[in-house]
Amino acid sequence: MQGIWLEDGTISLRDDLGPPEPVAGEALVRVLCAGVCNTDLELVRGYYPFTGVLGHEFVGEVAEGPPELVGKRVVGEINATCGRCKACQSGRSSHCPNRTVLGIVGRNGAFAEYLTLPIGNLHAVPEGLVTDAATFTEPLAAALEIQEQMTIGPGDRVLVAGIGKLGSLIAQTLALTGCDLVAVNRRAEKREHLETRGIRVIGPDEVASGAFDVAIECTGNPAGFAMARNALRPRGTLVMKSTYAGKLEIDISSLVVDEITLVGSRCGPFAPALELLAAGKVDVEPLIEHRFPLAEGPAAFEKAAEPGVLKVLLDIA
Amino acid sequence: MQGIWLEDGTISLRDDLGPPEPVAGEALVRVLCAGVCNTDLELVRGYYPFTGVLGHEFVGEVAEGPPELVGKRVVGEINATCGRCKACQSGRSSHCPNRTVLGIVGRNGAFAEYLTLPIGNLHAVPEGLVTDAATFTEPLAAALEIQEQMTIGPGDRVLVAGIGKLGSLIAQTLALTGCDLVAVNRRAEKREHLETRGIRVIGPDEVASGAFDVAIECTGNPAGFAMARNALRPRGTLVMKSTYAGKLEIDISSLVVDEITLVGSRCGPFAPALELLAAGKVDVEPLIEHRFPLAEGPAAFEKAAEPGVLKVLLDIA
Repeated sequence: MQGIWLEDGTISLRDDLGPPEPVAGEALVRVLCAGVCNTDLELVRGYYPFTGVLGHEFVGEVAEGPPELVGKRVVGEINATCGRCKACQSGRSSHCPNRTVLGIVGRNGAFAEYLTLPIGNLHAVPEGLVTDAATFTEPLAAALEIQEQMTIGPGDRVLVAGIGKLGSLIAQTLALTGCDLVAVNRRAEKREHLETRGIRVIGPDEVASGAFDVAIECTGNPAGFAMARNALRPRGTLVMKSTYAGKLEIDISSLVVDEITLVGSRCGPFAPALELLAAGKVDVEPLIEHRFPLAEGPAAFEKAAEPGVLKVLLDIA
Repeated sequence: MQGIWLEDGTISLRDDLGPPEPVAGEALVRVLCAGVCNTDLELVRGYYPFTGVLGHEFVGEVAEGPPELVGKRVVGEINATCGRCKACQSGRSSHCPNRTVLGIVGRNGAFAEYLTLPIGNLHAVPEGLVTDAATFTEPLAAALEIQEQMTIGPGDRVLVAGIGKLGSLIAQTLALTGCDLVAVNRRAEKREHLETRGIRVIGPDEVASGAFDVAIECTGNPAGFAMARNALRPRGTLVMKSTYAGKLEIDISSLVVDEITLVGSRCGPFAPALELLAAGKVDVEPLIEHRFPLAEGPAAFEKAAEPGVLKVLLDIA
């Protein structure tokens, strides 16, 4: 089978991969469409040592599994967990220390003709939801994780720093809460997809210092972190959605004096993400900038790594 | 009047200071006893530019002010705020951007014969509470700020990293919640004051990785921060009580992946601190290691800066 393989920081198209074999409790999924995420790019840059098939945002069709799912389109939660540890039994299964993670930790991913996942990880895609849009379920769930971690609503002044792939989804989900929302990006030409939805987008120089209750850091760079932190009032909350290769220098004393809260935020709930997509409450079509067949996977990665490029999709079947 | 003056990173005993003159709404307080805090030491090291009389932990006697307070012993909240800004009117007055802070920002402090503070900042010391113990009101309030920011109770596994002046108070307040508490310090000889109260104290090498729901960072050094962070389970909370001169390098990606929350924590509520002291529920006498008259203030600072030294008091009147 064909797949995009990462090894020693280099990606290549391979066509000699054996199809994955589902173990008990797993389904075999034929991948239809997959999306390239910043985490994929970070893995290539060496953020975390991984060797195998990349990719964790996908829609597939169940090839082997429970009869009620076979032939159905599905999306899949990416953490395959043990179910027995303290984290799993305390409602924190996405933090299971024994987990594998699709295309990230110890499990081949979605940029291939087939993948396997535990049956419990799969969610059927609603009939009326097109495959392209459903491919955004995983990042949209990650956007919704913020609202699992805190309550945001009318009266809250919220800044979304960076409106790339993930930041644009976060801005859309937060706009639905009725909060007082402002998004920031450097590129004036990349604002329209949010502005047409009534979301205000400003440049970094226009961000008022100390004016926000909550800031969401989605830039993944130190300047973006500094801007988001500076935008917060005392006792404000800085949500960190980006992984950074390397360490960040932080002025801890200022966080103590201003009693700032920093919250790391990762994977989120699939069911409400699918509901929002099916109801058309989040618009993902404008985020699709490019698409490539699987055989041109390396070119897809090059395109996705260009500054300011939003979502790149891989058409797999 | 005599006082301990900081200027350009040097402290000196001065006896040419004019006594402070209370403006409308302020009281004049004759200082009886004051405590040296790590923030005082950090100010000398240049953590924040301040010129003036140091000191913010004190018990005094009201010399001029409302008749019902004159002659009474008082402690005082250290933030003198404007009362009109958004922070003040939103219940965050300790973050008033127009504030002065006793012995820290724009206001002469407690290491002098007299100080002034807004009348509303003063709290009468209960009759039965001795002056030495009442001098701990301000740091004990800072310890209690943690419980203003989050709920800690039975079943929570809590690590207090560092049991110096502030960490020892924090450990005692947290022990009262019934949480599953472990304190850490490097010096085996400095554990008894907590162990006699039934608090378990271990060395840094004995801290189990990922075993705590909450860790309180009171060491003020990068190794202590790393230990506290490493002790947390995923989705755990790291409370930062220490100010650091300089910046700290932090692995933000690991905070994102593990969805760690960092909470900066500073000044806290005086009333419950006074109640705990008056009820004898927190034992501060064992924390007093040395005392000096005001005239030996510079020597008091030298002593307080020695590694592992707990509270140094200044007897002022």
